[in-house]
Amino acid sequence: MTLPDLKAPALKKPQLIVDLEKATRNVSRIFDKFQRHGVAFRPHFKTHQCAAIGELFREMGVRSITVSSLDMATYFAGHGWDDITLAVPVNLGQVEEIDQLAQRIRLNVLVDSLETASALNDGLTVACPVWIKVDVGYGRVGIKWNDEARLLELAKLIESSALLEFCGLLTHSGHTYECRGREEVQVLFEEGRTRMLHLEETLQAHGTSARISMGDTPSASLAEAFDGVDEMRPGNFVFYDVVQSQIGSCSAEDIAVAIACPVIGKYEADLKVVVYGGSVHFSKDSVIIDGERVFGQLALPASDGWKPVPLTDARIVSCCQEVSKIHVSREVFDQIGLGQTVYILPAHSCLAAEIYPRYRTTDGQVLERFRLFT
Amino acid sequence: MTLPDLKAPALKKPQLIVDLEKATRNVSRIFDKFQRHGVAFRPHFKTHQCAAIGELFREMGVRSITVSSLDMATYFAGHGWDDITLAVPVNLGQVEEIDQLAQRIRLNVLVDSLETASALNDGLTVACPVWIKVDVGYGRVGIKWNDEARLLELAKLIESSALLEFCGLLTHSGHTYECRGREEVQVLFEEGRTRMLHLEETLQAHGTSARISMGDTPSASLAEAFDGVDEMRPGNFVFYDVVQSQIGSCSAEDIAVAIACPVIGKYEADLKVVVYGGSVHFSKDSVIIDGERVFGQLALPASDGWKPVPLTDARIVSCCQEVSKIHVSREVFDQIGLGQTVYILPAHSCLAAEIYPRYRTTDGQVLERFRLFT
Repeated sequence: MTLPDLKAPALKKPQLIVDLEKATRNVSRIFDKFQRHGVAFRPHFKTHQCAAIGELFREMGVRSITVSSLDMATYFAGHGWDDITLAVPVNLGQVEEIDQLAQRIRLNVLVDSLETASALNDGLTVACPVWIKVDVGYGRVGIKWNDEARLLELAKLIESSALLEFCGLLTHSGHTYECRGREEVQVLFEEGRTRMLHLEETLQAHGTSARISMGDTPSASLAEAFDGVDEMRPGNFVFYDVVQSQIGSCSAEDIAVAIACPVIGKYEADLKVVVYGGSVHFSKDSVIIDGERVFGQLALPASDGWKPVPLTDARIVSCCQEVSKIHVSREVFDQIGLGQTVYILPAHSCLAAEIYPRYRTTDGQVLERFRLFT
Repeated sequence: MTLPDLKAPALKKPQLIVDLEKATRNVSRIFDKFQRHGVAFRPHFKTHQCAAIGELFREMGVRSITVSSLDMATYFAGHGWDDITLAVPVNLGQVEEIDQLAQRIRLNVLVDSLETASALNDGLTVACPVWIKVDVGYGRVGIKWNDEARLLELAKLIESSALLEFCGLLTHSGHTYECRGREEVQVLFEEGRTRMLHLEETLQAHGTSARISMGDTPSASLAEAFDGVDEMRPGNFVFYDVVQSQIGSCSAEDIAVAIACPVIGKYEADLKVVVYGGSVHFSKDSVIIDGERVFGQLALPASDGWKPVPLTDARIVSCCQEVSKIHVSREVFDQIGLGQTVYILPAHSCLAAEIYPRYRTTDGQVLERFRLFT
């Protein structure tokens, strides 16, 4: 293994860097795939949450998007997006705000209970497109895939409501994150797709047409059978991360975001390197690799950004509030100097990116992004 | 178990709330304990990071504090604190900034290598108090407790440096977080204390006097033998959290911070409740309880704030970006309504608090705090 020379001066503090070339490549790959399959593409913007990165998608022809909060929807509405799905079941405390935004754009919302659907209908003053959230096996939110009675009851209520426009069935197969390798993801996605199609047929038998919306980056990256699926809503693929590379959705080289950190400690007896950079800089999320909890992947500076170090040569084994500990091979240890900059590819890029009010890019730009708490 | 009536209207979005009465009680308890033991108290402010909460400490007589970043030191220096320990080893990229702040206040810094100590001495223009970071078993940073040769060499270098003022030995027994119960914590703290005293004697035999600084909330809360320890630097105890209540440092009733979240889903077949509130609202940190990964503890509204629900009746078993899933007992399920506000006591309060630019308090105040990225 040849590693690059490390001569960059020490950073003052950790900073998240985006490689726009990699991000663009990641987006193109998925965009082209869904074009080929004739599936509508409604990318989830919860990962980048950045207007400028949204433009990468728009330039390819994307016109409809997904978000994870009403504030995020409002941010993107302010940047010219007028067809947005809020992919979290409606919070009754936000019906008035939903109504306000629904007056400006096509705001698709999710319900999975009669109570919420009724309250929404009562609180709206304009028509609003509504999807029924279905749980195909992830077990988080949604009507269970085998609870047809409840689904029919809810679909009927929505169809009879004056202001709710029934669109279809929406699910997120978040349990694909537990898969390892293409085949496991394909099996799980296929199970979910079959369950969704069955529910669609059930509704059809009762005279109701429904579209089918599915999501998640592992399925978008690795599945190939999308018959009957009307739209896909992956999000993480724009940046990818170590969790995704472990699933097999991407390679470590595809990860388009890294946190630059200065090295503040080298401990030869333990072949240990400590960086200034911890859970306040890239979150506490982690992934189990070979039975060990790992908080990211080390990468070393390269002329065009960074080069991932194989996990066999470096493991981020602990992540405290401000510092992290990395066990490295002798070869890697010898190439890292105190005060030099290294990179951490995050375990979970959505949460790492969430921390930063703006991104620096490998080509020197500064991109402002949505901020949840201002 | 009698649970309070839940009638609060639905929240628009999650919000962190501080119970100042509990926080003050937590601070008093530790302050009084160290007064009794004659140990100097240098609380770590990395948990609250809030000038107004800092005043609670100042009113009791605290004059010296600990922080985890230079930016945080600068923030508190701007709020009248003039004796601050930056408890992370010096980052070579910040020597110039350290020098600037050291001109204004007594800024204690940490080193654990000859290279950093030399670079620091070369880069400073004013004298600066320096502590040697010791690793008594946690295994993160610091000179190993049994590496006397290296310690003596570093102490000698510091003593011979023109601008470095050698203060003593500092450690953080972060491995107490793996303990469960008072006895385990006491054993580990005692081991660390003995190792620190031994190193102090070694230095003394070579003509160098050293003070001993130790820290960590479990030891501060549960240890009783502090002979020879000059100062203690716990931080988390101001708020405590579920990790600390599991260790035994506090009870769930002592936890002084909670995230108010609206309920957006109820699923009777699974006795499952879903709240709007996830890792972007209280971090992805977790604690293993009875072999299960748990992301916080449910609490229900009470007249004076919230009342923790026993972990046997409610488990936050998954925490996604924006929503969390809670398995509850039948009794708790029946008392929670869709749209109502519940509280999440965070697994790790430092990381939960870090997310918010300001705290709301149970008595209606709004407290601004330090923000890492602005």
